Amino acid sequence: MKIGFVGLGAMGAPMALNLVKAGHAVHGFDVRESVTRALAAAGGHAAASAADAARDADLLWLMVVSGDQAEAVLFDGGAAAAMPKGAIVVAACTQAPAQAQRTADRLAAMGLAMLDAPVSGGIKGATAGALTIMISGDAAVIERARPALSAVGQRIFDVGRAAGLGSTAKMINQLLCGVHIAAAAEAMHVAERAGVSLETMHQIISVSAGNSWMFGDRVPRMMQDEPPVTSAVDIFVKDLGIVLDQGKQMRQGLPLASAAMQMFLAASGLGHGQADDSQVIRAYRAMNGKKRA
Amino acid sequence: MKIGFVGLGAMGAPMALNLVKAGHAVHGFDVRESVTRALAAAGGHAAASAADAARDADLLWLMVVSGDQAEAVLFDGGAAAAMPKGAIVVAACTQAPAQAQRTADRLAAMGLAMLDAPVSGGIKGATAGALTIMISGDAAVIERARPALSAVGQRIFDVGRAAGLGSTAKMINQLLCGVHIAAAAEAMHVAERAGVSLETMHQIISVSAGNSWMFGDRVPRMMQDEPPVTSAVDIFVKDLGIVLDQGKQMRQGLPLASAAMQMFLAASGLGHGQADDSQVIRAYRAMNGKKRA
Repeated sequence: MKIGFVGLGAMGAPMALNLVKAGHAVHGFDVRESVTRALAAAGGHAAASAADAARDADLLWLMVVSGDQAEAVLFDGGAAAAMPKGAIVVAACTQAPAQAQRTADRLAAMGLAMLDAPVSGGIKGATAGALTIMISGDAAVIERARPALSAVGQRIFDVGRAAGLGSTAKMINQLLCGVHIAAAAEAMHVAERAGVSLETMHQIISVSAGNSWMFGDRVPRMMQDEPPVTSAVDIFVKDLGIVLDQGKQMRQGLPLASAAMQMFLAASGLGHGQADDSQVIRAYRAMNGKKRA
Repeated sequence: MKIGFVGLGAMGAPMALNLVKAGHAVHGFDVRESVTRALAAAGGHAAASAADAARDADLLWLMVVSGDQAEAVLFDGGAAAAMPKGAIVVAACTQAPAQAQRTADRLAAMGLAMLDAPVSGGIKGATAGALTIMISGDAAVIERARPALSAVGQRIFDVGRAAGLGSTAKMINQLLCGVHIAAAAEAMHVAERAGVSLETMHQIISVSAGNSWMFGDRVPRMMQDEPPVTSAVDIFVKDLGIVLDQGKQMRQGLPLASAAMQMFLAASGLGHGQADDSQVIRAYRAMNGKKRA
């Protein structure tokens, strides 16, 4: 397939490379010229703009940061107008379901099909071609896109026909991630204030029913005062913000997501927005004190 | 060792049996005479009362439901008075840390040592002799008790010296369990209201960063209207109640545990206290409606 690829960041670059390796003609674009050149050196093609990457493409893969950026590339940047009728836009960014639906409607009016296809699995999964893709859209369009999807994703989940359902699935995962990180901080804060060794508590929970993927991943960094930043507090301010905006639009109370959001907001308000998200525990320490009264 | 064992319920009976198999002389008592007789038939001894089980014991294992029951057995029932000076009480019930501390103090005044030693791992772990034991108390006492502890537990975590620390560790596990079940319900409720297939969502989360032990265990029952009851909604009303009572005593705000508690309380208030705890999702359905407005 002739594939346009916009957004060659930490995840996008290895994904585009996996599309090249699978034999596709990949025309990549990123605002940073160096990463575009790197793709060309690895067997892809350097496009001069998003519209240039999209020209004559069978499929345009958008691996940008947000739904706003996706709209800017497609409509302000002229990428959608440059694509042939019947071509496919794969919107792989994390965005609100309503925005995914709106973009799909605008593309449909231009004779283009969209797949709402957010991914998970991080840089590791992107590099290995082992991402999880949560996809919604026309079933025939998914089949046409499959040679591209299977080059970057190991598990491809069909979430349904309507645009927005793929993004809803991703949002539900982010809801759980955010709540689980805040819950891990709440639990470890109880431990430290009661005088239980955090190392012992980490070992106990790792083999108990209270375990979560996030507990295992984040608590080792939670026990450090200045851990390396794998994902920042403000990322969850954004992601839980999407969850709660969507909840508001759907008229749906989400008490746990809301409580978790307040703790990430407080951590950010304390000045720790760029710290590792495990440091949401600092909001608990500020709130209750580090030691038992 | 000569071991008294009080509380031969679903978990206590196989634990007592594992003590017998390890070569200990186990004198068991339960208010239900049939289970006491079953222990005797399997090589143990049937005691006529808790005090009878405790008489001349090196170690008295209490596998009762609550700290109140433990106090009743020890002090009202005369078990503590029947024990020789220097003997060990293993308090394996789930109780508030403050209550564990109070009982330890009363026993110390009578010349008896207590280990605060709640367990986790369920009936499966109890049967296999593979429980997790979170233990606090005097280090020399833990060593004296080890032949009994290792007959029932596979992982024995030393949480510290003070009575109450073992119970705190267990309470922290219950905090995470309760929050994770409610979070799973909140997430699956978003999915059902948005029209995402619950089966697909379950598959996605099972391989994603939003996964938790409780999500994997409870969501299959959450998808059923009348699932078998593995653990009831009111158990978490009790356990999160202990968490929040302890938080109150320690002057410690716990926003996520509190939000989760409200959902279990609401489910119980709706009349579902005896339903499987996965049915906390009914509180979300009552609150927001089953379908998108």
